[in-house]
Amino acid sequence: MNRRYKSSLHMHKIHNGKMETISKVPLENKEDLSLAYSPGVAEPCVEIAKDPSLAYEYTIKGNLVAVITDGTAVLGLGDIGPEAALPVMEGKALLLKQFAGIDSFPICLDTKDTDEIVNIVKALSPTFGAINLEDISAPRCFEIEQRLREECNIPIFHDDQHGTAIVVGAGLINALKLVGKERNEVKIVLNGAGAAGVAITKLLLSMGFENIIMCDSKGIIYEGREFSMNSVKHEMSRITNREKLEGTLEDAMKGADVFVGVSVANLLTKELIDCMNPEPIVFGLANPIPEIKPELAKEYGVRIIATGRSDYPNQVNNVLAFPGIFRGALDVRATEINEEMKLAATYAIADLIKEEDLREDYIIPDPFDDRVAPIVAHAVGKAAMSTNVSVAKEIVLPTR
Amino acid sequence: MNRRYKSSLHMHKIHNGKMETISKVPLENKEDLSLAYSPGVAEPCVEIAKDPSLAYEYTIKGNLVAVITDGTAVLGLGDIGPEAALPVMEGKALLLKQFAGIDSFPICLDTKDTDEIVNIVKALSPTFGAINLEDISAPRCFEIEQRLREECNIPIFHDDQHGTAIVVGAGLINALKLVGKERNEVKIVLNGAGAAGVAITKLLLSMGFENIIMCDSKGIIYEGREFSMNSVKHEMSRITNREKLEGTLEDAMKGADVFVGVSVANLLTKELIDCMNPEPIVFGLANPIPEIKPELAKEYGVRIIATGRSDYPNQVNNVLAFPGIFRGALDVRATEINEEMKLAATYAIADLIKEEDLREDYIIPDPFDDRVAPIVAHAVGKAAMSTNVSVAKEIVLPTR
Repeated sequence: MNRRYKSSLHMHKIHNGKMETISKVPLENKEDLSLAYSPGVAEPCVEIAKDPSLAYEYTIKGNLVAVITDGTAVLGLGDIGPEAALPVMEGKALLLKQFAGIDSFPICLDTKDTDEIVNIVKALSPTFGAINLEDISAPRCFEIEQRLREECNIPIFHDDQHGTAIVVGAGLINALKLVGKERNEVKIVLNGAGAAGVAITKLLLSMGFENIIMCDSKGIIYEGREFSMNSVKHEMSRITNREKLEGTLEDAMKGADVFVGVSVANLLTKELIDCMNPEPIVFGLANPIPEIKPELAKEYGVRIIATGRSDYPNQVNNVLAFPGIFRGALDVRATEINEEMKLAATYAIADLIKEEDLREDYIIPDPFDDRVAPIVAHAVGKAAMSTNVSVAKEIVLPTR
Repeated sequence: MNRRYKSSLHMHKIHNGKMETISKVPLENKEDLSLAYSPGVAEPCVEIAKDPSLAYEYTIKGNLVAVITDGTAVLGLGDIGPEAALPVMEGKALLLKQFAGIDSFPICLDTKDTDEIVNIVKALSPTFGAINLEDISAPRCFEIEQRLREECNIPIFHDDQHGTAIVVGAGLINALKLVGKERNEVKIVLNGAGAAGVAITKLLLSMGFENIIMCDSKGIIYEGREFSMNSVKHEMSRITNREKLEGTLEDAMKGADVFVGVSVANLLTKELIDCMNPEPIVFGLANPIPEIKPELAKEYGVRIIATGRSDYPNQVNNVLAFPGIFRGALDVRATEINEEMKLAATYAIADLIKEEDLREDYIIPDPFDDRVAPIVAHAVGKAAMSTNVSVAKEIVLPTR
């Protein structure tokens, strides 16, 4: 256990967790109580009973996100159970507050059953303005999100999928500007067919990337492959790999311009990099050890490298995306987070770095750049309005 | 709409509800983030995965109560739905913090199905140290609480039942001291067979009261009654009404020493009071208008009157009970809240008023008496330990 980890354990122990709930109103005497609680509280209850949408005005609902997990895919630790997932969910809840002023409840469910999770989250939804699904293992996460999106009237967002995808998409836009390549001409190899890999691929396709080959631990995913498939890989095999390539990761890497890894540590050898086109771009997102260390990548001729780590430049950190996305969705009272809103977030993050500031080691904004969340929120809110998934009729521009 | 109610509506609107979630740890820079979130957060996750009980040390679980409703019996408003119930649950959550330092999430469920509510609350339980069920209609609330108590390893407490019962029990102990009657010789009429009525009756029986007659809107509940019964009324008919009396509320009131009403406004006439024994004691808990106004009760010869209202003396306010009860249960990490713990809370509240301070208008402590919650917590924690439903091996005495 290294020193940082010991410090984290200590910090969690002395505070008994990281969050608390507090009052926004005084509760010091009978008069206070008669307003915040009985009998005065009957009045907002009566009004909301007449029109449930007034919950957005009289309660915390409109600024409240649930961070919900079943504890099956927590960090790189896998299925560690609901109690053990709670420190991560607490942390996530606090990031929503810190980066976007959103209140949040972490909730860890003691069930792995897809139907049960869908029913529970649906039943919980009246209390919340939106739901952040977190650390639910693939492929269950895809069905759970899809069904909840259909059945709930509030936004449902599985951050492990879309948060990562959006930041990768933003970074890739900027990386291509530096190497002067066009989206429709680059070849992308994406290694890892879990939640993040699938979502990245789908987002890149909707951004206009045309030539994407997905791989998993068994090699290239192609239409008709008969081993180690599931419903999502079947779907991906149909919408990627237009040349119907079969073979290994090495076969896929030949002539690739971009590698995106959401897979395993230290996967990328010199030989694999050598297969790529000139000026290769690598997103090595395995955590905590990337597919290739940035120092080594540079040595092997990689022009631009991004990782998930905070101690290297170009960190693909979801905190660039999800706080602003939820902020925007809540601000316009969106009923869902659709493709257009995700794309809007992607472009907003990319555009935050002006062309003259772009460098190999600055294609992705810093997670603590406080311009990010308001700009993402604004773009997402606008996209919600223009695609008619929001209740709001106007949106206030943030001041830059 | 009176002025107080308008003020309440305004207060709820300007704050968009009453509570918020905040961080107990700094989140200002990358170092902070690496402790509270990835990668440092992995460490408490790993430890809890090895021993789930460590969630009590490294997370908010040990100080966190869920206030859960299905919105079917909210205040006197009835089945107003989950969104409309949220202002009450938020208020309740804040009272836990204000009176006992307990963090709390209000959760309103969009289902009225008993099985579904049981399954959902059970699945939610890993996140919480205890569950406060609230405003769930009778008789469903009895089965829901009973099944959850059997299936969960954390305390489950339906406050509408037991909170009210405990404060009534405490008040009655003190009232009897004033009139000099013994528990085993007084006759009690309890009007109202809902959540509170049933729980009050059961607690009074376990306190040693022997002669209790329950009534509902159809009159006396007796064994063999064939109209307007349910499983709980059947149970109550067997354990109350030892003389197997049949008839109306008026028949029941003949020779009664105590009337406890959890029923309807302005029910008690002069004729009904006149049926009672000398020095009658009345708990008129219908809300917001009691079974008899205190002024009128005095005029009709009632010696001691308690109501649910804050603008009269002797307010039966659950806030005297539930914060201390949850505090005590959490402090010793109780696995349930059993009869002994409820009785301990009852006696602790009663004993708070010294015999020399007892008066007709002071049989119940003031809700803002800040001695109450710590003393209740201590009594409850001690009772949990002595009945072996707690994990803790010792309990720290609060300073009086």
